[in-house]
Amino acid sequence: MLDSDTIDPEDEAFGITDRVIADVLAAVQAQDVDTLNAILEPIHPADIAHLIEQVDARDRRDFLTLWKGGIDGETLSELDENLREEVLESLAPEDLATVVRDLESDDVVDLVEYLDEDQQEQVLDALAAPDRVAVEQALSYPEESAGRHMQSELVRAPEHWSVGEAIDYMRSDVILPDQFYHIILVDPRLKAVGYVTLGRLLSSPRATRLRDIMEDSFRTFHVAQDVEEVAQAINHYHMITAPVVDDDDRIVGVITIDDAMAFLEEEAEEDLLRLAGVGEGSLSDGVRETTRQRFPWLAVNLVTAILASMVIGLFENTISELVALAVLMPIVASMGGNAGTQSLTVAVRAIATRDLTGANVWRVIRKEALVGLINGIVFAVVMGVIGAVWFGIPQLGYVVAAAMVVNLVIAGLAGTMIPVVLDKLKVDPALASGAFVTTVTDIVGFFAFLGLAAIYLL
Amino acid sequence: MLDSDTIDPEDEAFGITDRVIADVLAAVQAQDVDTLNAILEPIHPADIAHLIEQVDARDRRDFLTLWKGGIDGETLSELDENLREEVLESLAPEDLATVVRDLESDDVVDLVEYLDEDQQEQVLDALAAPDRVAVEQALSYPEESAGRHMQSELVRAPEHWSVGEAIDYMRSDVILPDQFYHIILVDPRLKAVGYVTLGRLLSSPRATRLRDIMEDSFRTFHVAQDVEEVAQAINHYHMITAPVVDDDDRIVGVITIDDAMAFLEEEAEEDLLRLAGVGEGSLSDGVRETTRQRFPWLAVNLVTAILASMVIGLFENTISELVALAVLMPIVASMGGNAGTQSLTVAVRAIATRDLTGANVWRVIRKEALVGLINGIVFAVVMGVIGAVWFGIPQLGYVVAAAMVVNLVIAGLAGTMIPVVLDKLKVDPALASGAFVTTVTDIVGFFAFLGLAAIYLL
Repeated sequence: MLDSDTIDPEDEAFGITDRVIADVLAAVQAQDVDTLNAILEPIHPADIAHLIEQVDARDRRDFLTLWKGGIDGETLSELDENLREEVLESLAPEDLATVVRDLESDDVVDLVEYLDEDQQEQVLDALAAPDRVAVEQALSYPEESAGRHMQSELVRAPEHWSVGEAIDYMRSDVILPDQFYHIILVDPRLKAVGYVTLGRLLSSPRATRLRDIMEDSFRTFHVAQDVEEVAQAINHYHMITAPVVDDDDRIVGVITIDDAMAFLEEEAEEDLLRLAGVGEGSLSDGVRETTRQRFPWLAVNLVTAILASMVIGLFENTISELVALAVLMPIVASMGGNAGTQSLTVAVRAIATRDLTGANVWRVIRKEALVGLINGIVFAVVMGVIGAVWFGIPQLGYVVAAAMVVNLVIAGLAGTMIPVVLDKLKVDPALASGAFVTTVTDIVGFFAFLGLAAIYLL
Repeated sequence: MLDSDTIDPEDEAFGITDRVIADVLAAVQAQDVDTLNAILEPIHPADIAHLIEQVDARDRRDFLTLWKGGIDGETLSELDENLREEVLESLAPEDLATVVRDLESDDVVDLVEYLDEDQQEQVLDALAAPDRVAVEQALSYPEESAGRHMQSELVRAPEHWSVGEAIDYMRSDVILPDQFYHIILVDPRLKAVGYVTLGRLLSSPRATRLRDIMEDSFRTFHVAQDVEEVAQAINHYHMITAPVVDDDDRIVGVITIDDAMAFLEEEAEEDLLRLAGVGEGSLSDGVRETTRQRFPWLAVNLVTAILASMVIGLFENTISELVALAVLMPIVASMGGNAGTQSLTVAVRAIATRDLTGANVWRVIRKEALVGLINGIVFAVVMGVIGAVWFGIPQLGYVVAAAMVVNLVIAGLAGTMIPVVLDKLKVDPALASGAFVTTVTDIVGFFAFLGLAAIYLL
């Protein structure tokens, strides 16, 4: 039987090795353009972009200076957003023109949307007139819309054409997109009515009408639709391209599955980082940028931690009579925080994937509370025994056990309800839920434990 | 300007509304098959699967009983794994045969791999002989390998063929896959040598040799390669299909971008859930299953919380002399825990996306420590002032400030180094880092704060 050990560890599925990076840096240091070109020639633009991201700021500058002519459009559009400006600045204006003319309209939009006006103008000037119109049109749509992210390059044909007519059209000297997998059929008013896959087209006789080999299901998306929803729909329905239409149902562009895939990967990453209280961070950000990104969440956490401490402060007298309470109280809070984080992560993800809806929200909340209750009872027993034995005070065991059950039930409830409510209020639950939920579990944990202790122990 | 408010909120990009679910349940309750069929007829299999996941267990049973003939192969393969067994059992054997014959080999594999032997045998028996061979072949590869997840349906052609020969071949009565976007070129020994996109094929004259319109870059993947790496490569290089080859470089299957996309979405979800200490959970799991999934992480957390409490226990005398310490200590630990979680989430994600490598690991560690130092100093000043003013003890301010700086630097270091080391040891960093990092920050936080207090305050 095969297993991963039988594969040479260096035989990676993709990417470049640390060895290649070292060779590139050596060539850069030796100012040896020929060696550099020889190393980079067979390397895919996505990997060159990766290399530029991996090296440090000084090496990157030296590399870009030496390898001026090498950057192409694809490398540029694969590059981390915060490095693009630097790379663009290293290009001579005439190189910039060649670079951007290669790109599809959505890649140009992606490239220019965050550039300052001067640089943006420079890129737009480098485009052919119709491409420039397409890019400016896309830039007029809202940031996260389908219209902003679609490519205008697509192949459409009248629905009354035959297979032969479509093939002859494509064999004529019409300019076709680099990659396309469908022909979109339009009626005389250019309204999109369906699509034919190229596979179906190729396997059908020349006389067949295109409308007779249309696929069954056809969906279009409006230019103003949220692009994340379009990407999710592409994934959900296994579409290869999603047609984008204007107010009159006329086809104006497509969003392709590879872009949707990259987009969903980014969104998943953002959700993950937001849940952890890290903003839009990237590994190639500098110390200053990273410090600034991390700061707000830590500041929020300081406020919530102080709130929790004020609850402890209410019980200073209780604690001074029985210091064991100070030893055990973080355990109750920590278990609640963890249980709450479990529930909230499941809820945030389920909201993002549309698995948590009006149809099942109450069932899920009830379930989470019940799970909290059961795990709460189990850990209450364990922790009750430990607490009683550790300090030799049986009542301390009862108190810690009771507080544990209360806090884990609240954790399940808060962990589910807070993200649901935030989502209803149109606040991103990934961004804000964590702080709310741990504040709740800290406060409830300390209050239940110390409060019960004040009543029953002293 | 357009914005999301101009779109009708009910005009979702995809999916079914709560309204449709309610209508379906009403029809089920009324035992009204005709209405049920009328509602479900236009609905995409992916949405029907979603509906089955959304309703509760009893409604699901009633629905499946009433709608027996309606489940098709696509619905089944879109369904959550833990519901498939239930749905399969509801099918009559003759329906099962029709259902699975529709599917591509990778979907059949996906369907049967976790079934018990009886059910697996039943499904395999329903397949045509060559399909059965393909499925059994795939099942012989390791679980997470490319061979296990590839589909055997593909189109290949000898590289010496002309465009015309290829088109005539596809127009003959050969059986083509439902969806295909490339033709893979093979040499006389069936070794894969390149591919031609259908777009290129269609736009080229009939006399052109296929080998002359091959795409520049061509990558193959070995059957034993990790399928997640293949999916990442598909995303990284914007491939539409990834050819899978055996030990002799013969093409045996392909992995398509839509499957890779679904796979990466699942992986991102798993990483997110693992980081939060939730196992392989799904929203449709019951209370018992969910309680069991949440338990191990809470148990680990209990142990680490007790360890941290033991550190507090060392300073019982110190606390009993100055209860203010018990009030402030959770703040230091909590800030460290949050800063550590920020660093570790960035590190875990960067390891998964291969952005954190040997080439930059030390630079990243240095950066994280520095970020911890800077934010540590800022929050030390804030918290030092608060601590001193709250309790009227200036020295308490110094101590809490010093402990804050120490803990945030350690948080940055531990948050980065722990996932890196776990990854080197082949332990999934998403699964294990959280517990280690918060243990470190709790222990360091309590120890630094209470230790400094014992030395300088009493």
